[in-house]
Amino acid sequence: MKVSVIGATGYTGYELVKLLTRHPEFEIACLVSETYEGKLFSDVYPQLRNICDLTIMGRDYEEVSARSNIVFLCLPHAAAQDAAAFFHGMGLLVVDFSADFRIKDAALYEATYGVPQKYPVLLYEAVYGLPEIFTSQIQHSKFVANPGCYATSVITPLFPLIKEGMVEHEGIIADSKSGVSGAGRKSDLAFSYCECNEDFRPYSIFTHRHTPEINHILKNTGANTDILFTQHLLPMNRGIESTIYVKTKSDLDTIAGCLRLFYKDRRFVRIYDNGHIPSTNDVANTNFIDISLFVKDERLIIVSCLDNLIKGASGMAIQNLNLMCGFDETLGLLG
Amino acid sequence: MKVSVIGATGYTGYELVKLLTRHPEFEIACLVSETYEGKLFSDVYPQLRNICDLTIMGRDYEEVSARSNIVFLCLPHAAAQDAAAFFHGMGLLVVDFSADFRIKDAALYEATYGVPQKYPVLLYEAVYGLPEIFTSQIQHSKFVANPGCYATSVITPLFPLIKEGMVEHEGIIADSKSGVSGAGRKSDLAFSYCECNEDFRPYSIFTHRHTPEINHILKNTGANTDILFTQHLLPMNRGIESTIYVKTKSDLDTIAGCLRLFYKDRRFVRIYDNGHIPSTNDVANTNFIDISLFVKDERLIIVSCLDNLIKGASGMAIQNLNLMCGFDETLGLLG
Amino acid sequence: MKVSVIGATGYTGYELVKLLTRHPEFEIACLVSETYEGKLFSDVYPQLRNICDLTIMGRDYEEVSARSNIVFLCLPHAAAQDAAAFFHGMGLLVVDFSADFRIKDAALYEATYGVPQKYPVLLYEAVYGLPEIFTSQIQHSKFVANPGCYATSVITPLFPLIKEGMVEHEGIIADSKSGVSGAGRKSDLAFSYCECNEDFRPYSIFTHRHTPEINHILKNTGANTDILFTQHLLPMNRGIESTIYVKTKSDLDTIAGCLRLFYKDRRFVRIYDNGHIPSTNDVANTNFIDISLFVKDERLIIVSCLDNLIKGASGMAIQNLNLMCGFDETLGLLG
Amino acid sequence: MKVSVIGATGYTGYELVKLLTRHPEFEIACLVSETYEGKLFSDVYPQLRNICDLTIMGRDYEEVSARSNIVFLCLPHAAAQDAAAFFHGMGLLVVDFSADFRIKDAALYEATYGVPQKYPVLLYEAVYGLPEIFTSQIQHSKFVANPGCYATSVITPLFPLIKEGMVEHEGIIADSKSGVSGAGRKSDLAFSYCECNEDFRPYSIFTHRHTPEINHILKNTGANTDILFTQHLLPMNRGIESTIYVKTKSDLDTIAGCLRLFYKDRRFVRIYDNGHIPSTNDVANTNFIDISLFVKDERLIIVSCLDNLIKGASGMAIQNLNLMCGFDETLGLLG
Repeated sequence: MKVSVIGATGYTGYELVKLLTRHPEFEIACLVSETYEGKLFSDVYPQLRNICDLTIMGRDYEEVSARSNIVFLCLPHAAAQDAAAFFHGMGLLVVDFSADFRIKDAALYEATYGVPQKYPVLLYEAVYGLPEIFTSQIQHSKFVANPGCYATSVITPLFPLIKEGMVEHEGIIADSKSGVSGAGRKSDLAFSYCECNEDFRPYSIFTHRHTPEINHILKNTGANTDILFTQHLLPMNRGIESTIYVKTKSDLDTIAGCLRLFYKDRRFVRIYDNGHIPSTNDVANTNFIDISLFVKDERLIIVSCLDNLIKGASGMAIQNLNLMCGFDETLGLLG
Repeated sequence: MKVSVIGATGYTGYELVKLLTRHPEFEIACLVSETYEGKLFSDVYPQLRNICDLTIMGRDYEEVSARSNIVFLCLPHAAAQDAAAFFHGMGLLVVDFSADFRIKDAALYEATYGVPQKYPVLLYEAVYGLPEIFTSQIQHSKFVANPGCYATSVITPLFPLIKEGMVEHEGIIADSKSGVSGAGRKSDLAFSYCECNEDFRPYSIFTHRHTPEINHILKNTGANTDILFTQHLLPMNRGIESTIYVKTKSDLDTIAGCLRLFYKDRRFVRIYDNGHIPSTNDVANTNFIDISLFVKDERLIIVSCLDNLIKGASGMAIQNLNLMCGFDETLGLLG
Repeated sequence: MKVSVIGATGYTGYELVKLLTRHPEFEIACLVSETYEGKLFSDVYPQLRNICDLTIMGRDYEEVSARSNIVFLCLPHAAAQDAAAFFHGMGLLVVDFSADFRIKDAALYEATYGVPQKYPVLLYEAVYGLPEIFTSQIQHSKFVANPGCYATSVITPLFPLIKEGMVEHEGIIADSKSGVSGAGRKSDLAFSYCECNEDFRPYSIFTHRHTPEINHILKNTGANTDILFTQHLLPMNRGIESTIYVKTKSDLDTIAGCLRLFYKDRRFVRIYDNGHIPSTNDVANTNFIDISLFVKDERLIIVSCLDNLIKGASGMAIQNLNLMCGFDETLGLLG
Repeated sequence: MKVSVIGATGYTGYELVKLLTRHPEFEIACLVSETYEGKLFSDVYPQLRNICDLTIMGRDYEEVSARSNIVFLCLPHAAAQDAAAFFHGMGLLVVDFSADFRIKDAALYEATYGVPQKYPVLLYEAVYGLPEIFTSQIQHSKFVANPGCYATSVITPLFPLIKEGMVEHEGIIADSKSGVSGAGRKSDLAFSYCECNEDFRPYSIFTHRHTPEINHILKNTGANTDILFTQHLLPMNRGIESTIYVKTKSDLDTIAGCLRLFYKDRRFVRIYDNGHIPSTNDVANTNFIDISLFVKDERLIIVSCLDNLIKGASGMAIQNLNLMCGFDETLGLLG
């Protein structure tokens, strides 16, 4: 299987390339970046010298299409729309990292991102790529919209609990924190070392774009949620932690049992109800999402941790592609 | 005024000594530490060579008492009880950093800390030292119980709003994060560099000892709260941020106006309702507490930031002592 | 004394403003920044809300000149030349943070910085502002060229030792490391958080511009040096450490004695020969430079630490201005 | 091949276990730790839940011997002597991480480490495990002494250059810096988060134990060196950088050619002479050592970077074992 990456030189592109070099079934065909065209990938990321020394291509989608069966789109939202439509039209399997096809409701997408949805018909094709939740749709799909990293950390624990009526839909609060790599690889004073180091702050209060995504996807449980979702910037490279506050009338055993049943045999979801509190380091550089549960006085606190670049982006994308190709979902992702 | 510090070699002791060396009215008499007896303070903290080269004393409270008008107790809870009783009995002004006299209800203290309150009668003397809230009591007190750092970040914004009925008492959630210095200066694998760096996690879920302190002090508003309070450990040295979720029927202007009125002329409380989101860096190495307010759909989000070692401990202690001595509360604290 | 700062919104400008707000003799007149004209200084640095809320001016040097006795130039090299000439011509005391007037040899300056020296005659006026070395020249000067941060860490320990013939001039190696704030406040991928965090590397090998500055200034000892000087970027905000390798036939006592005599009564130079190894944290946020000395087998290793923004820039500038104004050099710099 | 790890719960043990779980030819038999006996390995390192959930054994070397073909000793120096002798005597392949058998000269070992060499005869068996230098000895050995992390970063670039007479033996200076994980996993105030974060300092000036190791191994080139070797502690988890100053009469091409020839076909040694300056991030979490070369005025500066836990310890150990077992040296180490 020949795989290409569009937008290969961002942080998610880099992690993806690393994972692809280790994967037994996928071979990298083209790495595309307009900024770095003509350079070796290992010039941009010297970490990969002797591992991936391919020459970066410019934006020649015809060429990519001719040489690949599969394409990953690591592009900003809006920019991904045309590329997705093109490669899907050419018959390639597409995994799109952007937000462009996550939200089925074109109006909601447009209100959230301030750009038109040019391919509303494609929304019928795109499957929201939470691999442990929408497994069979992904297995039968040729076009997966890879979820947002924050959204993954919030939806994964909540989806089964809301679906099975274990918790109240009202008043859920998700207080999330992310490492700086979530902001991407760019020249921006706000994300310069001295501005982020030894500092911590919330951002996008009441206005983060993953909020509509979360509520939209949770509708698939049959319930309407209106989650209050707040993000913070951590002085570290990678990792997302979400502390989620939920009202419940169930007890810890029942709640843990519900999650364990739903995620039975899914190796990347690790559930704790024994008091262990996961940390971002527990999941760093892995495709795991760790979830722990605490109940007291009709209050459930969920702690959810993942690596925003792996389980929140590139690892999840490989996992989705494994499912789309009929492979074991863990292939190439366990070390 | 001759000032002594018991437990001078911890991080709060160190910050206190630094502040005292800059204060125009206070002179350091004795620095006490059993561990470092006989060493120069600047042997333990070479930062202060040529600034504070006093020899550290062992635990000779009679001697301290003879040479001082004022004593700061930077001791662990339980350990501070006897010292506080002794120095108060000897007529010194006492500022106690421990939790021993913060909670007036001896049974609640004992349940929370698992040790007996040996001096319940002293609870009538001790004033809870939130300088902007209990100002006049502090001004007339000889014994101040310095608040907890987390508690300060939560109580300061909530107290006026609850007192004036601006917000609901029910369902308040405070999601707080602290730098590692909050754990103190000690040899402990859990707080070693490699365990904390590039990591983030909650701790003490449902069980943190500042929760009873917060609810107990907020009772002074006339309302009963049952705050859900969660803490997290940040990979940085200093700073506390609390994101506080409150239900309200008031609008932003009214809420901001209430806080501004309550903290009128109090220089160390900075209130934002213009969208500025404070960060821990905004208050690092200062005695400020920054509070910003966001309202939407009957939800109030408060962001509260302070330096846990200054406004959350040693700076606040000096501020309290300034009030106790009849000085301007900002004396020695603005640079 | 009315003081203005040109280029006030960089990191050295910010530290300078903080120091000025605490200084008993200087009052800030104008803060100039083209980028932030019209904003409050505390909009750019919310840390200083309630401390310095002045409105930032655009580049109106006539106005600055009319309102000030003293001006600090926190401008990039080349850009400072005209400003220095103007303000010096208008009779203001000038402290120039740039490299423009540090090197008396115009040809060397031009070769090093690749720009012409437009005001060679001003080189006769400018005094190299190492306050502990060129004290009396600074006291009689109206124009001080503030030294480079790295250069300060290397010249301060070496100058007396070379001057007194305590060490060989040949083969000196200075291996220096700096925190990221040394690169200034800017949008630059190379200094973004994720590129610097958990990373360490040398840069400018054989080509750093402080090398000519160091050798040029050391010529004042009467000796010619050709120091091999290497820099590294540390994953931290502030601090410079230089490990300096020197050949010597003297013993530790003689060497330490030489330095102690030269820096007698100079409070900001702290010298250790007792095995204490200083660290950048020993001097963080202070105007101290810590120097320790180790001798074995005709080898001298000097460890030199300072805060690049204080003793390496803004604190040293205030110290120089104190000398120019006839004040005690420590005024406003001890906390 | 059944592999056991003695001292499995330190940082090198953890990295070793991670690598072993990914290796196609080795299977973990026993994980030994006296401190954590009876716990699951994934209780100590939750990162490995679902990856390595073996129960940790206490110190039963007979049992280990019965169940294993190979043993890794991750023990402190001195403590490893008996274990090495025992397992070697039982016929297991041994890779010893400690310093106990690195130095063939028992007197030098005893002078350096202050403990007796109880098994001098074993010194004839032990091969110093720098895999790219002592390849054939390692391939024929049953007992490898894994090199020190610092020593690896210094010896790897210097060995061929000294052997081929490309550089002078005299006056070599290696200025090395290491992340905190080099100090091991322990409760120690000096390595606590707040003491190391935002700080940088040298340590063990003139006295580091890797100095004799480096000079001793370099004797194999036929030359006597007396390297001046200094270490510094970096505020980061992992990575070693050495900046090495050498005198040379050769030019860059000749020097680079010498290294390239010596390390021909050795995938883990990456050599740069094009101006690229490697950083610790280039090699983080990999078994690569990156070396770059700069020559000017008869001065050679070598920059050498490796991951102290991988190429400096556990990755190199696997690489050695691969050689001992007749496998490709890269097996299990490229992803």
